[in-house]
Amino acid sequence: MKKVNLCLLGASGAVGQEMLKVLEERKFPINELRLLGNREAGKKVVFNKKEYTIEKVTKDSFNNMDITLVAVGADLSKKLSPEAVKAGSIVVDNSSAFRMDKNVPLVVPEVNPDDVKLHKGIISNPNCSTIIALVALAPLHKFGKIKRIIASTYQAVSGAGKEGMEELEQQIKDYVAGNKLKNSTFKYQILHNLIPQIDSFDKNGYTKEELKMTNEGRKILHAPDMQISCTCVRVPVIRSHSEAITIETEKKITVKKARDLLSKAKGVKVVDDPEKFRYPMPLDTSDQDDIFVGRIREDISAKNSLVLWCAGDQIRKGAATNAVQIAELLLPELEKKGEEAPAKKTAAKRTCVRKKAAKK
Amino acid sequence: MKKVNLCLLGASGAVGQEMLKVLEERKFPINELRLLGNREAGKKVVFNKKEYTIEKVTKDSFNNMDITLVAVGADLSKKLSPEAVKAGSIVVDNSSAFRMDKNVPLVVPEVNPDDVKLHKGIISNPNCSTIIALVALAPLHKFGKIKRIIASTYQAVSGAGKEGMEELEQQIKDYVAGNKLKNSTFKYQILHNLIPQIDSFDKNGYTKEELKMTNEGRKILHAPDMQISCTCVRVPVIRSHSEAITIETEKKITVKKARDLLSKAKGVKVVDDPEKFRYPMPLDTSDQDDIFVGRIREDISAKNSLVLWCAGDQIRKGAATNAVQIAELLLPELEKKGEEAPAKKTAAKRTCVRKKAAKK
Repeated sequence: MKKVNLCLLGASGAVGQEMLKVLEERKFPINELRLLGNREAGKKVVFNKKEYTIEKVTKDSFNNMDITLVAVGADLSKKLSPEAVKAGSIVVDNSSAFRMDKNVPLVVPEVNPDDVKLHKGIISNPNCSTIIALVALAPLHKFGKIKRIIASTYQAVSGAGKEGMEELEQQIKDYVAGNKLKNSTFKYQILHNLIPQIDSFDKNGYTKEELKMTNEGRKILHAPDMQISCTCVRVPVIRSHSEAITIETEKKITVKKARDLLSKAKGVKVVDDPEKFRYPMPLDTSDQDDIFVGRIREDISAKNSLVLWCAGDQIRKGAATNAVQIAELLLPELEKKGEEAPAKKTAAKRTCVRKKAAKK
Repeated sequence: MKKVNLCLLGASGAVGQEMLKVLEERKFPINELRLLGNREAGKKVVFNKKEYTIEKVTKDSFNNMDITLVAVGADLSKKLSPEAVKAGSIVVDNSSAFRMDKNVPLVVPEVNPDDVKLHKGIISNPNCSTIIALVALAPLHKFGKIKRIIASTYQAVSGAGKEGMEELEQQIKDYVAGNKLKNSTFKYQILHNLIPQIDSFDKNGYTKEELKMTNEGRKILHAPDMQISCTCVRVPVIRSHSEAITIETEKKITVKKARDLLSKAKGVKVVDDPEKFRYPMPLDTSDQDDIFVGRIREDISAKNSLVLWCAGDQIRKGAATNAVQIAELLLPELEKKGEEAPAKKTAAKRTCVRKKAAKK
């Protein structure tokens, strides 16, 4: 298999660090590895027993890279991802910058792997809550066609990055020490609290985070008419998101059928044995890639409606693992291109398509 | 106003202690106060600057008491509440023991105060999550008739009493000290975790806690056909429950109308100003009686459907305050009876009715 020149932009953040861990674990075929991150530039990082130094981003940073994993915020990604594409790299972007761009596939490898093939240089990694919900819901949708989703999320502080996790940890320490609790990453104290706002508000009263589930969910499932309403809430949990979900389907799905479909689904672990007090809990899903699904029951409030509860590690499957899985889906394309054309030419072609798309 | 002989069964628990606080704050007209509690019998308690001793329960405990507030578990209440009624007392029971009994009114004073008049000796205090939801939903139901409720709860550890709060506090201390975390009140660690099970499971996959919302909600709102589905989750929050709620109504309710209805409603505080980052949070509702309601928006997934978020102190409005409010509703009845008949006779009559009811 062709070994890949891989660039990681945002190597010092929580997701960037996890991406390195996942690349190593999954034995991703790396030739050259380049780590970029302005905040911790100069820092040494060990990957596959070799030491790397995090570099500052320059105009040459993306030269000669096959794939660039982008683990920085949307504003920076908007600026740098097109630069990486111009330099010949395929970008897998974890930010929200390009997710709803018609020319950018939005991919959960267990759900819509083939969409990767439609990329024009950038592929977006969906929002963490969307990934976690869709891994659980796609097998049910395939069987019974979901018409409506109502979800309430219980989102870990890791969703706000390293700073979010550190802020909760510090609040716990200060609480025990009797010190005043400070907050800066979150608008309010998160210890012993819940914050029903993630991202900014839209005019319709939903937050952008809540609308991501609607818009991204429809795009990934190729279901423009699916009705989705979500309430997103930050909870004092370190790194796994949980979601209480009600789905209304065109075709009835019994609990038995749902368990059966989900137990055969990739990336899902059915944890659903009420008698033995077994159900998904964020603590149990930490540091794992599977989305745990349980509390599956027929909705007593409507026909052809199912209620379930799922949990998944936000930093792994909700971000890093999903991005690396997308990169894996790119390997055949890179192998093929390596055979048929020199890197520069491919890059030029790709940039061209991208420019055309941007004009539309 | 007639001063009341008041007995408090379960005086040493979290709810019992809060009841004392609320009785004092609201200047409940007390003649004699009797505090009962086997666990902390002998303990001194100060009420209205006077010292009282918690007594063990005996066969004479309820003699000469006008009202007995019951703040013990359902099993003990099942045994003792009828004893109190026999002894001539009206019982306000915070447990689930009699809530669905046809002869027992289930009352949220802001919602169905007149139901108190139908009592035959016992009045039940609803489940905390039900009270919190219904204070917020009743004004909307009155206007637009709610057909369906889908709720996800975020329930504080105080719902498991003093022990629940102590367990979270101890886990925080042990976490910071680097000790092994212990749990006994909760099935699993609650710090940094969510437990999607409260109370035991029913055959239909819902927990009893979740079905309380369905059954109690219908009873309180006199709406036997209302469809209600709930997911109840324990979260690491000390004493306020929050709920993400979607309601489908017969008549459309705009956001403006909902805010208007709720801002005029008793027991509700509308906290709903996204631009100023104002929405209900459990920390803000602690030690208060109002149910905070916000994040009110039209459901983008269905017509005539509204989404909101509410939070309220579980120990106060979810339990103690609601019970004391019910006791206040009983004062006119006691005044009248005090004028027309000696206590013994009234008690005998009441017992008789209760026995008849039990036979049905």
